[in-house]
Amino acid sequence: MKLLRFGPKGQEKPGLLDADGNVRDLSGVLVDITPQTLSPQGLVALRALDPATLPVVKSPGRLGVPFTGLGKFLAVGLNYSDHAAEAGLDAPSEPVLFTKWENCLNGPNDPVVLPKNAVKGDWEVELGFVIGKTARYVPIEDALDYVAGYCLVNDVSEREYQIERGGTWDKGKGFDTFGPVGPWLVTTDEIGDPQQLGLWLDVNGVRRQTGHTSKMIFSVAYLVHYMSQFATLKPGDLVTTGTPPGVGLGQKPPVFLKPGDVMHLGIDGLGEQTQEVRAYDTRWLD
Amino acid sequence: MKLLRFGPKGQEKPGLLDADGNVRDLSGVLVDITPQTLSPQGLVALRALDPATLPVVKSPGRLGVPFTGLGKFLAVGLNYSDHAAEAGLDAPSEPVLFTKWENCLNGPNDPVVLPKNAVKGDWEVELGFVIGKTARYVPIEDALDYVAGYCLVNDVSEREYQIERGGTWDKGKGFDTFGPVGPWLVTTDEIGDPQQLGLWLDVNGVRRQTGHTSKMIFSVAYLVHYMSQFATLKPGDLVTTGTPPGVGLGQKPPVFLKPGDVMHLGIDGLGEQTQEVRAYDTRWLD
Repeated sequence: MKLLRFGPKGQEKPGLLDADGNVRDLSGVLVDITPQTLSPQGLVALRALDPATLPVVKSPGRLGVPFTGLGKFLAVGLNYSDHAAEAGLDAPSEPVLFTKWENCLNGPNDPVVLPKNAVKGDWEVELGFVIGKTARYVPIEDALDYVAGYCLVNDVSEREYQIERGGTWDKGKGFDTFGPVGPWLVTTDEIGDPQQLGLWLDVNGVRRQTGHTSKMIFSVAYLVHYMSQFATLKPGDLVTTGTPPGVGLGQKPPVFLKPGDVMHLGIDGLGEQTQEVRAYDTRWLD
Repeated sequence: MKLLRFGPKGQEKPGLLDADGNVRDLSGVLVDITPQTLSPQGLVALRALDPATLPVVKSPGRLGVPFTGLGKFLAVGLNYSDHAAEAGLDAPSEPVLFTKWENCLNGPNDPVVLPKNAVKGDWEVELGFVIGKTARYVPIEDALDYVAGYCLVNDVSEREYQIERGGTWDKGKGFDTFGPVGPWLVTTDEIGDPQQLGLWLDVNGVRRQTGHTSKMIFSVAYLVHYMSQFATLKPGDLVTTGTPPGVGLGQKPPVFLKPGDVMHLGIDGLGEQTQEVRAYDTRWLD
């Protein structure tokens, strides 16, 4: 299933995308797509529905983040060996983790807003996964059973804040709108092997990132196994798994985002996102 | 006011501590102590109540985290100059930020559980504050207006995970039970100057930390001002402001937590916490 949420910010309704590409309204069946919805039992109940019996939404309009009730939003750094090389860093011996703050969540096509005076905004197309079952010390061979689905994430970053302002990367990863997620949360049965997906990102029509999840240093299964030793992972936790080469910081000379730029990105089977970059203005945040 | 939540884990009721030290039941007035409760309007409504009209809870039992609906849990590293010195690090030129994951939240007197095979568990008594009003680019002179109240936090840490496992500090700060908060959330009117509070921590009856918030490098007001440039701070966001000297890692030789140890800590006007340290067992987590 391709689960989604449609409607104005803060008023999204639950829906799904049917095999013909129509949005079907789930609001008669569910209040929202919550961590409970993403549990094994919740997904079994949803799969028992015949999408043809759900109302078609002719003009779904804006899409929101495809689920609600986020617990934590974890992120992996330097998880593609060729991206680590472009950042001038050695490939890590174990996953580099950081955190994206909840306030950064953004619909897949909502504007991305630069902080005031920010000059090093950057893009990162990434494969995200959402936990569907409480995970503690999970063996790697069982790890994918704990994943409810996959989604496209743009791990938008401000490199000065991330790298030059002291402390951890979190400072450059959590500004409002820096976490576009969606258009859909695609359940694992539709994806098969998460390590066989192509991903790409264009800025203003120029291809900047081209990658393939087979190049990930630490697989989705390994990440679930690994992270579940540092914290309980719970339904509704979102993990974004690192970016392939081609970020702005890696260009020679570096290229950073400016107002008016358009990011367009996608992953095989997970859909596409388009974001226009805007200068700071609270009207894009509320 | 001293706001609190009492009752078994997951079934806490809202309450407050009256001037005589009695717990009064707020559950006839509020469903819970939420971000909305902590907004200026919410606190005005609560202050209009006469505590004497609320039922006394004779045996409140366990206390939980004194509010619910956490957005993000931010933390400041090396914010006492003498603690930075004991860690062998220069005092930072701007605040070092990291993130504690939501799953670490723990009642003030609940057991603290060490991860499997963890050998460098450590303590950190800290002053926490909770945001009551949406904060963006807040001038330092207005910053305290955005704080709903203060609370005692033990920023429990696993130093190997924090420092020796690659990447950011987050990895050693977010294990379940690593964030005891409470007993109370004390509204700002009862505290006055947050930079005039003594704080202390004992392990097994031995005084390990003695500090005073006047020694903070970056004040509460500065932190609100500073953080509000990297993300919108929202009602229900919790910030813990760094620890004074005397952590286990700073002892010569270092001393780390082991099962059976008891931590006892407090801050002037914010109450005390007592936690017993336990080996990993999921019965302390569920």
